Amino acid sequence: MKSIFVSSVTVMLAIAISCFAIASGNSADGDAASELDIKMPDGYRDWTLITVAHEEGKLNDLRAILGNEVAVKAYREGIRPFPDGSIIVRLAWSYDPLEESSSAFGSPQSFVAGAAKNGVQFMIKNSTKYASTGGWRFAHFNNGKRADKAVHDTCFTCHQVARSRDFVFNRYSP
Amino acid sequence: MKSIFVSSVTVMLAIAISCFAIASGNSADGDAASELDIKMPDGYRDWTLITVAHEEGKLNDLRAILGNEVAVKAYREGIRPFPDGSIIVRLAWSYDPLEESSSAFGSPQSFVAGAAKNGVQFMIKNSTKYASTGGWRFAHFNNGKRADKAVHDTCFTCHQVARSRDFVFNRYSP
Repeated sequence: MKSIFVSSVTVMLAIAISCFAIASGNSADGDAASELDIKMPDGYRDWTLITVAHEEGKLNDLRAILGNEVAVKAYREGIRPFPDGSIIVRLAWSYDPLEESSSAFGSPQSFVAGAAKNGVQFMIKNSTKYASTGGWRFAHFNNGKRADKAVHDTCFTCHQVARSRDFVFNRYSP
Repeated sequence: MKSIFVSSVTVMLAIAISCFAIASGNSADGDAASELDIKMPDGYRDWTLITVAHEEGKLNDLRAILGNEVAVKAYREGIRPFPDGSIIVRLAWSYDPLEESSSAFGSPQSFVAGAAKNGVQFMIKNSTKYASTGGWRFAHFNNGKRADKAVHDTCFTCHQVARSRDFVFNRYSP
């Protein structure tokens, strides 16, 4: 039973790490959802840094998590669940050894962010509209275009692993 | 000769990666320098993300580079040298395997930022005041207090490796 659970969580995490879930078939999302189907929130690249991470394996990236003012305020003040209006975005880039550093040390020492990869992902909080997915809408964009339904369908399941943290994996780094 | 150079660069990079150089003995810095001796620039934690990185070895951290408006504008528009008023800050945190991910995959897959470590470092541009160190003043803080002279003395030497990029190692990640 445990092995089945672990296996399931493995699959769920593998999927969730590479994408965010859209509340598939959640046709009650209404206008806001339709709007988000079209474009990414404006100005997200200037949002405040929440934290950074590195993914190994197939993802093999360096990533940054940013938040809008509502999300960052909630992070800093420990407010959970996150208030409506919170938006969190995950950016990622290739994981590249810094040539200057590798030459000097004789082996990789510094790894820096290269080209953008693995898409851009958002979590948008509206506890009413997205109640069926923990109050969050999840969206994954590749080159500015929303990924298809197959990319998103299974991801909310994984975020339930972080249910005690309002379905958000990342913590704020001071 | 090459080995001496490589060895020297290794030492310089090792030092520079763990600290930033203060223009030691640069008594011409005047009031601005005295002020920076006391405190870190206000609000830096809200500055815009420039890029992220991972250091192996003794540093063993995940780090983020942020910039104030002047620095970020210069990065985005490719303006070099950086204009006076540019400030770049480097934050760093411990490099921790994410327990949820490790349990699911059976080995570390996701590495996240833990506690703050390796200090907070600034590069402040004033091409007149800091002309002797490429126009930059470098400052390293541990727990909000400036590190001592020994921490800073050798670091500008290393930043000369990045002379062609106005002494700045990090590139902007879109």
